[in-house]
Amino acid sequence: MNAPDKLAQLLTLTREPFPASRKAWIEGSRPDLRVPVRDVSLTNGEVVSLYDTSGPYTDPAAAIDVRRGLPDVRTPWLDERADTEHYEGRARMALDDGAKHEDRDAQRIAALRAEAAGLQRTPRRAKPGANVTQMHYARRGIVTPEMEYVALRENGKREWMREYLADAGREQRLRGNPMGAAIPALITPEFVRDEVARGRAIIPANINHPEVEPMAIGRNFLVKINANIGNSAVTSSIEEEVEKLVWAIRWGADNVMDLSTGRNIHTTRDWIVRNSPVPIGTVPIYQALEKVGGVAEDLTWAIYRDTLIEQAEQGVDYFTIHAGLRLPFIHLTANRRTGIVSRGGSIMAKWCIAHHQESFLYTHFEEICEIMKAYDVSFSLGDGLRPGSGADANDEAQFAELRTLGELTQVAWKHDVQTMIEGPGHVPMHMIQANMDEQIKHCHEAPFYTLGPLTIDIAPGYDHIASAIGAAMIGWMGTAMLCYVTPKEHLGLPDREDVKQGIVAYKIAAHAANVAKGHPGVRARDEALSKARFEFRWTDQFNLGLDPDTARDFHDETLPKDSSKEAHFCSMCGPKFCSMKITQEVRDFAAKGMSEKSAEFKAAGGELYVPIRPVA
Amino acid sequence: MNAPDKLAQLLTLTREPFPASRKAWIEGSRPDLRVPVRDVSLTNGEVVSLYDTSGPYTDPAAAIDVRRGLPDVRTPWLDERADTEHYEGRARMALDDGAKHEDRDAQRIAALRAEAAGLQRTPRRAKPGANVTQMHYARRGIVTPEMEYVALRENGKREWMREYLADAGREQRLRGNPMGAAIPALITPEFVRDEVARGRAIIPANINHPEVEPMAIGRNFLVKINANIGNSAVTSSIEEEVEKLVWAIRWGADNVMDLSTGRNIHTTRDWIVRNSPVPIGTVPIYQALEKVGGVAEDLTWAIYRDTLIEQAEQGVDYFTIHAGLRLPFIHLTANRRTGIVSRGGSIMAKWCIAHHQESFLYTHFEEICEIMKAYDVSFSLGDGLRPGSGADANDEAQFAELRTLGELTQVAWKHDVQTMIEGPGHVPMHMIQANMDEQIKHCHEAPFYTLGPLTIDIAPGYDHIASAIGAAMIGWMGTAMLCYVTPKEHLGLPDREDVKQGIVAYKIAAHAANVAKGHPGVRARDEALSKARFEFRWTDQFNLGLDPDTARDFHDETLPKDSSKEAHFCSMCGPKFCSMKITQEVRDFAAKGMSEKSAEFKAAGGELYVPIRPVA
Repeated sequence: MNAPDKLAQLLTLTREPFPASRKAWIEGSRPDLRVPVRDVSLTNGEVVSLYDTSGPYTDPAAAIDVRRGLPDVRTPWLDERADTEHYEGRARMALDDGAKHEDRDAQRIAALRAEAAGLQRTPRRAKPGANVTQMHYARRGIVTPEMEYVALRENGKREWMREYLADAGREQRLRGNPMGAAIPALITPEFVRDEVARGRAIIPANINHPEVEPMAIGRNFLVKINANIGNSAVTSSIEEEVEKLVWAIRWGADNVMDLSTGRNIHTTRDWIVRNSPVPIGTVPIYQALEKVGGVAEDLTWAIYRDTLIEQAEQGVDYFTIHAGLRLPFIHLTANRRTGIVSRGGSIMAKWCIAHHQESFLYTHFEEICEIMKAYDVSFSLGDGLRPGSGADANDEAQFAELRTLGELTQVAWKHDVQTMIEGPGHVPMHMIQANMDEQIKHCHEAPFYTLGPLTIDIAPGYDHIASAIGAAMIGWMGTAMLCYVTPKEHLGLPDREDVKQGIVAYKIAAHAANVAKGHPGVRARDEALSKARFEFRWTDQFNLGLDPDTARDFHDETLPKDSSKEAHFCSMCGPKFCSMKITQEVRDFAAKGMSEKSAEFKAAGGELYVPIRPVA
Repeated sequence: MNAPDKLAQLLTLTREPFPASRKAWIEGSRPDLRVPVRDVSLTNGEVVSLYDTSGPYTDPAAAIDVRRGLPDVRTPWLDERADTEHYEGRARMALDDGAKHEDRDAQRIAALRAEAAGLQRTPRRAKPGANVTQMHYARRGIVTPEMEYVALRENGKREWMREYLADAGREQRLRGNPMGAAIPALITPEFVRDEVARGRAIIPANINHPEVEPMAIGRNFLVKINANIGNSAVTSSIEEEVEKLVWAIRWGADNVMDLSTGRNIHTTRDWIVRNSPVPIGTVPIYQALEKVGGVAEDLTWAIYRDTLIEQAEQGVDYFTIHAGLRLPFIHLTANRRTGIVSRGGSIMAKWCIAHHQESFLYTHFEEICEIMKAYDVSFSLGDGLRPGSGADANDEAQFAELRTLGELTQVAWKHDVQTMIEGPGHVPMHMIQANMDEQIKHCHEAPFYTLGPLTIDIAPGYDHIASAIGAAMIGWMGTAMLCYVTPKEHLGLPDREDVKQGIVAYKIAAHAANVAKGHPGVRARDEALSKARFEFRWTDQFNLGLDPDTARDFHDETLPKDSSKEAHFCSMCGPKFCSMKITQEVRDFAAKGMSEKSAEFKAAGGELYVPIRPVA
């Protein structure tokens, strides 16, 4: 498909607002601080306001040119802080794209690069001696616009929720179990600051990613989800690459990791970061490996360090760095069922073995911190020894690395560098809590960011479900962000539909966790949808769901006629008899019968539950 | 599609054995006691033996004629007990099919009925004064062939599992958490007898369903799943109806409920029961309602009682009976978000309100027990007041009914009638444990049989996932059988693909629960698949999964060539670099390096975990 076609597809498929939805904003303390939400208009006149990750793409009024990138909303905030400087930046090298000059794509890519020249920005870095991390500001008591943005975003519009959460008895009965989290009734900017200051939350926001709409990852905030995307083997257009991002955030990805490998990864990353309203994460070792032709042994600290700076200048918001995979731990994997399954982890293991040396990520960790704090790149400390099967769950290799990640967290915090911790992987249900407990204990409540976990190993083709079970549970227990798994896990590369299936499964897991934790107001959407369901407002039921299109399509398969959208019955019981129709009669009966009923109860000893009477 | 086409489709689609699989049998203490298993041959010469619900349909050697039904394997066992008698049975009435004689289908159905005359059996019932329930035999110390069958089936072939579970350290680390269950290392026939005797397990096996392959539902046995099917509005053939059953058991349904309504339900039930190797459950009130033209108020005990006998004679193995929904509880639903959502429950609520009388199911409960024990039909005591939204979870209406079901369980057990208890529904994660606790406390460990529960309400189109999360958790906590939810839940009637999606999601939930509970040997399949995955035995990985077809198709989308089935790499990392290939190097390294490593550890103070060294 050529570029114009792709562009057309992008515009039609991923820019269309959700049904009955319009982009709205919560105004902050300053005119340039506006937090987007999605307002859904119901057929009964109500408006339900939802958390919105989709950025300007779902705003028909937004003029978007993927060759120019999104507006740099944060630039005024960065300028005001006056602690950064623009500079020429690292010199671009052919090697950055893993370029082989015989590459038959080289010319096309050069052309695309030229087309997208408008995406180039002059990089910023901290002025000499300055530390520009959100954690650094927080620890100095400063509430940044990013922190206020996060507070407003986490709260959302509370007004519409009130009537749904008004029943005191119900609220008492449904009160969440935060499992040790300390979630306030209202998130204030100061609360965000304090959580970031103590390292319990991060706001991934590289100073070179001014397009980002700030969000928080932390135990006391809403559980977030991450989606992974990768570049195409043969890139046909900028649109094709950007559209993967736009598609992922449309369905609710809070973060996106660019796991591109092979050709053109530097250029592809420019396209993605400049057009992304959500934080972008990467695994820099992947690009470093490309630079040494895929030979792990040939990796050097110099090449890796240069890659960190390259990506920090581009605006990557967090780096997965497997610095906890240490030489002495490698042999602990020798008797595993599935050895080392993390790609980054195995690259470093191979390097350590080849050189019989400690990992350069570990020995140079403080130098890495110096780079991170000059751009406010957050650590995502990688679990290179995560289990690749239930059989290897919670073993000494995994936990030895986790304890090391806890030590490294302390080092990162010494530099005020924001840090989260990556977790497994494959873990049976009964062993999930131990992962959370160990992480909290050794990593001092730094946000946990887990892949699944998959609760069983026998569901290839359905691992989004096998892992959504574990993800929902560990999210309830305190994990701050869930990395999605698609149906193609273990089998192949996810296509557009797989990405959507993985994201929806993880939105389910994250919402289930938020409801169980008792995040204020989070149940209101369930109540609104249930009310619509009960009142046969079909369209509202579809539009309040995670995927209105699919819900409507499924309904239409059985009852296609538009009139049935208002029908007071459904295909399950049909028009002749409907269980929900009974309830009005019940209500009349209750109203009328309450007095005699209560008399009856008193006669029966005032017990609501009346013991069975022996039958003659 | 006409009947021959359907028959062809049935034979090709649902009779084909699974890849590399063949039907095998575990021989019992007598020649007519043979428990089927599915033996999967791996490319490395191993054979993995799996629990098999698919019946003779996946045995190419079995001659199957859906117009004659399956072989009546249990007949010798029933005859030997000499406590039943054949009798003419209840006279067939036109009304049984809810027949309206102007019905334009009447003739076609009459013709199909004639075709299927071979399905008619002379019914059996207990001789006067006899009680023919498995519970009654168990309480008298008798081990029936059904009990031995269940024991062999639960254990499966243990030989092949040994090597996978040989690592003592791993077994210790992965030891399950039974959450109060008492699961023996090996299931003996006597254990089955004792569990049935105390009511902690049931073996649904109507004496008029001699075709059934016995299975157990109980907290100390493998978690089972149920799939619901319904008749077509316009039946075109016997094959069409039977194929829904065959399709469901192919993918692993342990039980099937026939929720048919409308026309021809008596005839359809004959077709299904006679061709079913798994227990069949029904909700008799549905048929009774058809007999009174869909007017709940017109229901009578006489019509309902006659329907119970009609279905007991046909061989239905368990009845959902909403006898716990009592008049005094109905008003408790008045202020619910979603009122009464159980169809059977709302029918009875409407009856109670209309007559201002206690439910006839409750007042006639002991008479119902008399019928159940004459045919060994098991109770599935229905939760007519289950919550239809998270907002209504665990409320007084739900729990008042649950306590009543506990009382009724005691009454049923007084008659030695096998009993299980139905549960919700919609329950947020943090409120699931309370459901299990209340059920165990008030229902005396009678098997719990839950629908989901759905952990959130905002996933229409994906409720198989929203509910698989709750199902896995409550299965771990002690629920014995999980009733599936399909993607069409709340939206429409599931088609063939929806049924498969629902079943696979629930096989995942049940297996995750069995692994967490620590059922002996249950993890072996995960270990075998993980080993195949690690050794790049792609075909074995597919064939050991829950859905080999889909796993293979997904792999082929990225790497179609057959050669890639033996390729020592996958599409995720490609041929150039593969994380799993590292492990052999790790093993060599570990073997060689172990001594020096251990020296290094001692030097470091003997700690496996080496504290970080400050970097200059």
